[in-house]
Amino acid sequence: MNIEMIEAAAARLDGQVRRTPLLSSPFLDEIAGRRVLVKAECLQHTGSFKFRGGWSAVSALPEDQRRNGVIAFSSGNHAQGVAFAARAHGIPAVIVMPSDAPRLKIANTRGLGAEVVLYDRAHEDRDAIGARLAAERNLTLIKPFDEPQVIAGQGTAGLEIAAQAAAEGVTDGDVLVCCGGGGLTSGIALALEAKAPGLRARPVEPEGFDDVARSLENGAIMSNERTSGSICDAIITPAPGKLTFPIMARLCGSGLVVTEQQAQRAMAAAFTRLKIVLEPGGAVALAAALYHPGQVAGDAVIAVASGGNVDADIFCDAIKRFGDGT
Amino acid sequence: MNIEMIEAAAARLDGQVRRTPLLSSPFLDEIAGRRVLVKAECLQHTGSFKFRGGWSAVSALPEDQRRNGVIAFSSGNHAQGVAFAARAHGIPAVIVMPSDAPRLKIANTRGLGAEVVLYDRAHEDRDAIGARLAAERNLTLIKPFDEPQVIAGQGTAGLEIAAQAAAEGVTDGDVLVCCGGGGLTSGIALALEAKAPGLRARPVEPEGFDDVARSLENGAIMSNERTSGSICDAIITPAPGKLTFPIMARLCGSGLVVTEQQAQRAMAAAFTRLKIVLEPGGAVALAAALYHPGQVAGDAVIAVASGGNVDADIFCDAIKRFGDGT
Repeated sequence: MNIEMIEAAAARLDGQVRRTPLLSSPFLDEIAGRRVLVKAECLQHTGSFKFRGGWSAVSALPEDQRRNGVIAFSSGNHAQGVAFAARAHGIPAVIVMPSDAPRLKIANTRGLGAEVVLYDRAHEDRDAIGARLAAERNLTLIKPFDEPQVIAGQGTAGLEIAAQAAAEGVTDGDVLVCCGGGGLTSGIALALEAKAPGLRARPVEPEGFDDVARSLENGAIMSNERTSGSICDAIITPAPGKLTFPIMARLCGSGLVVTEQQAQRAMAAAFTRLKIVLEPGGAVALAAALYHPGQVAGDAVIAVASGGNVDADIFCDAIKRFGDGT
Repeated sequence: MNIEMIEAAAARLDGQVRRTPLLSSPFLDEIAGRRVLVKAECLQHTGSFKFRGGWSAVSALPEDQRRNGVIAFSSGNHAQGVAFAARAHGIPAVIVMPSDAPRLKIANTRGLGAEVVLYDRAHEDRDAIGARLAAERNLTLIKPFDEPQVIAGQGTAGLEIAAQAAAEGVTDGDVLVCCGGGGLTSGIALALEAKAPGLRARPVEPEGFDDVARSLENGAIMSNERTSGSICDAIITPAPGKLTFPIMARLCGSGLVVTEQQAQRAMAAAFTRLKIVLEPGGAVALAAALYHPGQVAGDAVIAVASGGNVDADIFCDAIKRFGDGT
């Protein structure tokens, strides 16, 4: 992985990706005690940064291989990113999802033109189903994070952050990133290393699912004890990736951990002050910026708001309970 | 009023205003039966386009006059736009608000550094209070819409729309604008006349408060029968302005009218598909694009989403009731 791969991904994404805005509010600055800049990736196509990696991976395939189509395992944001990119390239996409996935997510993925193959989580083996389909149809598997062209795609968000932060006069400080398997965090870290060396990426995770923070602390890949039971479902993964972890270990500052309640408060603050919709997993970086200021360095902090695919019930629970997030 | 005034306002706003994104979703295109591009002014500073006009008016004052401060009557978005602009210019702002205004809006306006003067709607005369304060302190009144530099400021949104639409390959069609007194609509209409003559501004209003639509139809200023009782409170005004109406009469297409329920459905669609927060009055243009496709011309339609300052209860009522807005 290197910056040239990220720049090549940016060239492939040019004219397709949204350059999402860096938002701010004096009310958020007051909570955090410093300037807070929010990279609003919830405004990206398909409602999360995953569009970047999906497009990057699909567009990087050799034409004759791509033509056969792609396959992905996902019940969430990665599914929609890959489906959107595949449709725009005019190729088939198969998304393998558990049959108990939320109906809206299944409908959305179908709505983006993908073939959704459902499996029974209790009795069927997802990988076996995927391998059979891939072999039968010559489909290429697009992994959600531990895949170089996916990391390169997510890294394009880091190129934008470097340029947008410089335009705001911010050249050093922490860039907090909502972190699951580490694709976005490692991609941003690589982009910042090359383009904004005074900015440092730091992963943020929910309490109880802090595999990346513990892995960074221990210098070796650590796993979560469980991989379900969090409202931050979009960023829950078993462990950091084999490709993403070494990048994070080399470039990132220590990880931060927030409570689910802090993620919900940050959703409320983003609703009231920024007018954006965040899902719980997409709000943990902003939560760290607002509610853990003592663990953050610098006069300004950048928080990546990674996604906004959330049901009305979960969203309303947060914004009604936590007012304006103060 | 002319394009030079809008361009001068854009120069004064440069580096201060957010160039808000033009958002889209294939799911919205499907509802409308054509491409839908949403100019997300809810992401502007203070959560609405009113920042543009407030900044334009404050920054256009001669230095010695500005120094004394400004005054505005508003319980809503105009108050916050003027307060934000005044603070950034280091001058005092007095906002005269009814004592029964929502506490959050009073708190927000104070939070932006303004002096809030409350009056009793039943027993006190707002204009008399304002005139006395203005005279005592040499404050300049910033009117909400019928003021040339305010119209010029709102027109900068039209300059951005012209450039962004061209970048999307859209050079003709309707630009639907949430319309109260007509400051935003007339400003955008003037900008489009000069920069994108194939695009045509059209005002959108809630049912029962369609003074602008009726005024355009009759060729003369008509009033609303009532000026309260709509959830679209941000865009309810007694009648179009003396400055804004002739501009709209010369340049705009006919007005569109939507129901409150359609505004709420559009809020739900924007939540689910665009991840932005709209207030009811800020959603009427999108509602017209989605639910009145037969009244719109062209292969693509641009809807201005003018603001997002909405309480959690009203927002949740809409998004829980109307799902994804289909």
